[in-house]
Amino acid sequence: MKAEIITVGTEILLGDILNTNCRYLSRELAAMGIEMYYQITVGDNEERLLKTLEESLNRSDIVICTGGLGPTEDDITKEVCAKYFGYELELHKPSLDAMIERFKHMNRVPTKNNEKQAYFPKEAYILKNDNGTAPGCIMEKEGKMIVVLPGPPREMESMFENYVKPYLSKLTDDVIESEVLRIIGVGESKVENDILDIIDSQTNPTIATYAKGYECTLRITAKAKSVEEAKELIKPMSDEMKRRFGQSLYATGETSIEEVVSKMLVENNLKIAVAESCTGGMVSASLINYPGISSVFMEGCVTYSNEAKMKSLGVKKETLDVYGAVSDKCAKEMASGVAARYNTNIGIATTGIAGPDGGTDEKPVGLVYFGIYINGKVISKKYVFNGDRQGVRERATRTILNDLRLELLNMEK
Amino acid sequence: MKAEIITVGTEILLGDILNTNCRYLSRELAAMGIEMYYQITVGDNEERLLKTLEESLNRSDIVICTGGLGPTEDDITKEVCAKYFGYELELHKPSLDAMIERFKHMNRVPTKNNEKQAYFPKEAYILKNDNGTAPGCIMEKEGKMIVVLPGPPREMESMFENYVKPYLSKLTDDVIESEVLRIIGVGESKVENDILDIIDSQTNPTIATYAKGYECTLRITAKAKSVEEAKELIKPMSDEMKRRFGQSLYATGETSIEEVVSKMLVENNLKIAVAESCTGGMVSASLINYPGISSVFMEGCVTYSNEAKMKSLGVKKETLDVYGAVSDKCAKEMASGVAARYNTNIGIATTGIAGPDGGTDEKPVGLVYFGIYINGKVISKKYVFNGDRQGVRERATRTILNDLRLELLNMEK
Repeated sequence: MKAEIITVGTEILLGDILNTNCRYLSRELAAMGIEMYYQITVGDNEERLLKTLEESLNRSDIVICTGGLGPTEDDITKEVCAKYFGYELELHKPSLDAMIERFKHMNRVPTKNNEKQAYFPKEAYILKNDNGTAPGCIMEKEGKMIVVLPGPPREMESMFENYVKPYLSKLTDDVIESEVLRIIGVGESKVENDILDIIDSQTNPTIATYAKGYECTLRITAKAKSVEEAKELIKPMSDEMKRRFGQSLYATGETSIEEVVSKMLVENNLKIAVAESCTGGMVSASLINYPGISSVFMEGCVTYSNEAKMKSLGVKKETLDVYGAVSDKCAKEMASGVAARYNTNIGIATTGIAGPDGGTDEKPVGLVYFGIYINGKVISKKYVFNGDRQGVRERATRTILNDLRLELLNMEK
Repeated sequence: MKAEIITVGTEILLGDILNTNCRYLSRELAAMGIEMYYQITVGDNEERLLKTLEESLNRSDIVICTGGLGPTEDDITKEVCAKYFGYELELHKPSLDAMIERFKHMNRVPTKNNEKQAYFPKEAYILKNDNGTAPGCIMEKEGKMIVVLPGPPREMESMFENYVKPYLSKLTDDVIESEVLRIIGVGESKVENDILDIIDSQTNPTIATYAKGYECTLRITAKAKSVEEAKELIKPMSDEMKRRFGQSLYATGETSIEEVVSKMLVENNLKIAVAESCTGGMVSASLINYPGISSVFMEGCVTYSNEAKMKSLGVKKETLDVYGAVSDKCAKEMASGVAARYNTNIGIATTGIAGPDGGTDEKPVGLVYFGIYINGKVISKKYVFNGDRQGVRERATRTILNDLRLELLNMEK
């Protein structure tokens, strides 16, 4: 079973957009045991897309197209794929109704050019778009398949996961199961080094490392005749990874460090207040992404100025004068202060130099202190983060959440 | 002058790596006025790479290959390209000497398999690798050109910038200039509808719409003999867009709504404080992304609970009891309250239902109120945003920044 990916979009050829869709689909198809030997990008051009469809379907069984499902004149992917198979497009009323409903919810009305997004070949299997306007579809003819997906990654990934994957799974006898293990605070090359023996000897299951968003994930994939068999193949390797990485391996599956920490807080009814300087609200925002956080999240402060640190958190003027806002002493006072103010079990604080300006030899750009107060005890942690202004803030946000997690884990012992 | 990019590497087909090289090269080539209609990814396979080279060079004049210049058995790109042109490889002693010197600097010695990295066709123009081991090269034959570059982005980008770009610049006369216009608060299909006449009649310059991150951008691209001429072609169309979209067209070039708003605040020395509920810190974090914001950003509060709204912002208990936290009255009191607390010119506030739970018929998920206080006057705005929890919060964040921008623009009149 061979597949190819055709990314449709002149903006990709011009380099306006980074093609993350192709990578996502490659991983998913590889995990499903579907082989891939070519990936092509073409522009919003009927002639070239038709030619590419022909070449690809001469070589492979399945083509997955992303992009070109929008309402504009440049959006031609579905039309061209239908033309390739000789299928006519007709109005699919349920799709049009769903579109009108979606637009109503946003106090908008579909324009005339939106309507074509509800036209499909009657032969097509239509794929709902849970995160956007345009449904996708799967067209088949004489043993060849074209899957037509939207360009925006959030829409494409959701559609693929919920509707395409189950459809494609029926094509192969083997079952492919994967387990994703999430590691934080360890760089990808170190992770790979630490499991080199396993990487070199892998057959089934396979293991691969992926670095993304300041984390490294391990993906263990097994192929077997049933889900149970596949899981049995995965378990020993998974257990070995947990043994080797210890607390750095913070979760299994699709989750995030903020979700894991938020759950710990809610499940243990630990009230928390957050005081931020350089991270500017990102730590609060991460925790508040968790539905149900309201039971424990009391308040967050973005005390960006020295006055705000003193007035809202009770940081001492002497501390700011003698040690400065970017110091372990200040971080501890911020954490204790915000916890005291809202009478919470936990107070966490960030203070640092995000850059690009403000650094000195003694206190360089990227220097960030954390204060972590838990039930009467307060500690500080010091880091120097790499990256630009946004990068330093993002790294600091993820790291303080992980440090809180480790403190809570070790507290329970 | 037409070019194609061939990315060589099985790891790309498996989705192990995100293909950033292709985007980098696309942008560079577009800026040089070199046309591109296809991009292909193939694995480390001689037969498929030969076939792809043949198809690409039948269609285009230049092929740029990245990847496969390493020392391992899988690295075959240079060998296959030479084979395609019928060129023999021979040892290039200066490259070997440079490699030995580089390894010496790292306290290492080249292994036997490194040596092939110093073999080139005598016909080739060799490209130094300032950031890695393997030089690249440019091979030409009968009007066709193959550029062979390493895979690691840092090596590839440096080699392209320093050695390939000057070589290619000599090939083209034309210059391509683009202008990006940023529109907020108008959906892509409405934008296209409003400029359909221009889209239909475009020749040079061209215009294209791109939807991304709750914004729509317009890209106007002109081709001419010089940068000045190209800019003169762009101007009339750009002026027309500004006329048609008015205040919805908020900026030109690479920027963001938060950057534009932050600049307005700093340039007008307007002190601001922010009170957030459902957005949880995202609005504060957006403003704080702007270096220099400290001159005007006093403090942010994430008043997630009713108690915090009353205690920190002075929201009246009666307001919360009678109208609820998600109401225009509460939003106004939050905005006025946070401005009063820090004695700022501006206070902005968000309160809403991000979901997935908490919605009712009267107050559905996605309902968000903004409070905007400016120098004694306070207004509220009401929206119902589409999307999941993160989507509602992101949309609300961008929208309140834009609403603040519009209030400030209209204030100046």
